Amino acid sequence: MEPVSVAVSAVLPAGGSGERLGGATPKQFCGLQGRPLVSYAVRAMERVSWISDIIVVVSPENIETMKSIIEKYGHKRVTVVKGGVTRHRSIFNGLKVFAENQSSNRLLQKPEVVIIHDAVRPFVEEDILLKVVTAAKEHGAAGAIRPLVSTVIASGEDGCLDHSLERARYRASEMPQAFLFDIIYQAYQQCTDHDLDYGTECLHLALKYCKTNAKLVEGTADLWKVTYKRDLYAAESIIKDNLSQQICIITDLKEAVAQVGFLLHESLKSQVKVEAISISLSKNDSHLQNIFSGECYNFLCINDKEYATEEIQQLVDMLEKSNIPLLYPIVLILVHLSISENIFFSIELEELTKIKKFAREVKKKNILVYGLLIQCKDHFSLQETVNSAAALTMALIKDRNPELIGQLLVA
Amino acid sequence: MEPVSVAVSAVLPAGGSGERLGGATPKQFCGLQGRPLVSYAVRAMERVSWISDIIVVVSPENIETMKSIIEKYGHKRVTVVKGGVTRHRSIFNGLKVFAENQSSNRLLQKPEVVIIHDAVRPFVEEDILLKVVTAAKEHGAAGAIRPLVSTVIASGEDGCLDHSLERARYRASEMPQAFLFDIIYQAYQQCTDHDLDYGTECLHLALKYCKTNAKLVEGTADLWKVTYKRDLYAAESIIKDNLSQQICIITDLKEAVAQVGFLLHESLKSQVKVEAISISLSKNDSHLQNIFSGECYNFLCINDKEYATEEIQQLVDMLEKSNIPLLYPIVLILVHLSISENIFFSIELEELTKIKKFAREVKKKNILVYGLLIQCKDHFSLQETVNSAAALTMALIKDRNPELIGQLLVA
Repeated sequence: MEPVSVAVSAVLPAGGSGERLGGATPKQFCGLQGRPLVSYAVRAMERVSWISDIIVVVSPENIETMKSIIEKYGHKRVTVVKGGVTRHRSIFNGLKVFAENQSSNRLLQKPEVVIIHDAVRPFVEEDILLKVVTAAKEHGAAGAIRPLVSTVIASGEDGCLDHSLERARYRASEMPQAFLFDIIYQAYQQCTDHDLDYGTECLHLALKYCKTNAKLVEGTADLWKVTYKRDLYAAESIIKDNLSQQICIITDLKEAVAQVGFLLHESLKSQVKVEAISISLSKNDSHLQNIFSGECYNFLCINDKEYATEEIQQLVDMLEKSNIPLLYPIVLILVHLSISENIFFSIELEELTKIKKFAREVKKKNILVYGLLIQCKDHFSLQETVNSAAALTMALIKDRNPELIGQLLVA
Repeated sequence: MEPVSVAVSAVLPAGGSGERLGGATPKQFCGLQGRPLVSYAVRAMERVSWISDIIVVVSPENIETMKSIIEKYGHKRVTVVKGGVTRHRSIFNGLKVFAENQSSNRLLQKPEVVIIHDAVRPFVEEDILLKVVTAAKEHGAAGAIRPLVSTVIASGEDGCLDHSLERARYRASEMPQAFLFDIIYQAYQQCTDHDLDYGTECLHLALKYCKTNAKLVEGTADLWKVTYKRDLYAAESIIKDNLSQQICIITDLKEAVAQVGFLLHESLKSQVKVEAISISLSKNDSHLQNIFSGECYNFLCINDKEYATEEIQQLVDMLEKSNIPLLYPIVLILVHLSISENIFFSIELEELTKIKKFAREVKKKNILVYGLLIQCKDHFSLQETVNSAAALTMALIKDRNPELIGQLLVA
């Protein structure tokens, strides 16, 4: 990514009431994988190093909720600002933090370019942010657009079709948008109460009051706005999909364990990126540390001991310290290898109860533990069992079902 | 629902290439719970008794696929028609079946009103179909509309904003739409090649060529068009949600079994509609037959025998005969009640393998079997165990995960 040569900050209006969602909780506070939607949008800004300040504008009754979200998920560079009764009034309040001394917020350094982005568009990438910022620097204003999905029509006063728009000539205006700060701030200062109360489009204000024709930047499909309940479902599935792209297989150095680890690796690698590590967990392995600092949210730990409690506890401690489970739940699959040839092999209920108890404890740290039994009776059936274990592993990491923690699945 | 006094048929264009989805399979053929999207839209029409013929228009290469879908899912009153290269040409082909003798399709009875609906809008209800048909009968044309989610803007030739539309004055034109057959057919006969090649809006054709201002009918949010991958995710979640609204608990007449059945019922009823039946499965119970003819896709069968194979096989046979699993996968949870007070209770691996094998067999009939163990050690812990069993039950019926079939979960 090219370096950005201007000072950039961002304003995230998050004051909507979520009426269209049909629930009591405004959608920006609905949980996805346990974390509120607004935290995803904040995180999307926060991970972009060249964005200085992130202003989140929320309605007065949600200020404390928002502050606790910022604390809980360790968000940095965020200022919470009290919103107005409409979208435009909220955005204006957010911009004022850079321009006017106010009692409730300290004056922040005015940026050259300000990004405006919805709190309910969680999947914005650095690439499109850079594009709108660059275009805004040149044109004064810029915004992401998308092709229309439906034809747009004008309705007459009788509730009948007046005319339909030629779909190819029009675009849906999406977010993010970016503005030279002075332009958008001046536009807000000049606009009427009617604009503030009934308008929705920042690009329109820049055009109307500052004669700035915003540059339109083609955005990707994932910029869509979470509006309805179905959008929450979609967002949850996309997040799960993103979280299940990579898995780390941890084995110790014993031959039988390493062999099953290898076979599992082979069986999984067509479906998911696999990192395999062969270590003694008791040592502070640097390779493992690398994985912990990456984007891996799934771990599969193979063992031939009866629930190697100590090693597993150590792994859990390392995961907790790594901060990975702060933002997303981690899946930890404990594979128990049974090398017994006894066909009357049986599982004690007492043992199962122990795993469940352990999983419930560890869930408090946002780590989802599942058990998986692989029985190696003979070489002939091992490959089949490994394939079944791989299928179960994929199902577990894709679903991330918190109700199934502590269960022992049999491959 | 009021009776409809006109002859109505429907045309479903299903010829899209699904470019925006980014996959090889056109979206109307993507599977949701194993069944292609187009089958959901067909089913939505088919269950409306006053729709006579359902014309599905597909591109030439998909005619055989479409015919096999109709056969596999037992759809009735459907005629498959070869589509054209554009949406309008496909719809026109669909309409011709009612008006012109063609070599490939027999001439169908011309309806007074024709519904046009997209194959990729699976959740259309009878209510909105009735509304557009009634309005079409009066006004000549009618279509469902929705508020705009994003502001619509016009782009200038320089790729900059030209103007933005006042959002409140415009609507998104959705489906279903309905027309007096003679109006829409006349419009298609008169329209130009340019209309047929570049147009997308049937309401526009009725206005342009027949001076018919369509009545606009406010639709519900679930009319949206499956366009992107996220829409498939959303549709899948909505279907799973719909399928997990009701569960039937089946117990035999033994006291211990009936008691656990009662406790489970109590624990589940705040989350889901519960039907409880106490029967001997060997009798052909009429209550059970009633449930089978309803909208229940989840069954929980409680037993204290070690996998009461015969009774369960009987239940599976009855489910299969009921035709419920034809359209949706059924979840069947086999609850095994262990009344042993032995804390060293153990599960034989052999036994687990047996359930898995059985589940794999039954999955071919679209029935997903899971095992659930409830151990009744003492009265004190029973309630807790039952609550855990209820949580696992909800997780299983909400997820309907085909990879986890045949696993024995422990409550």
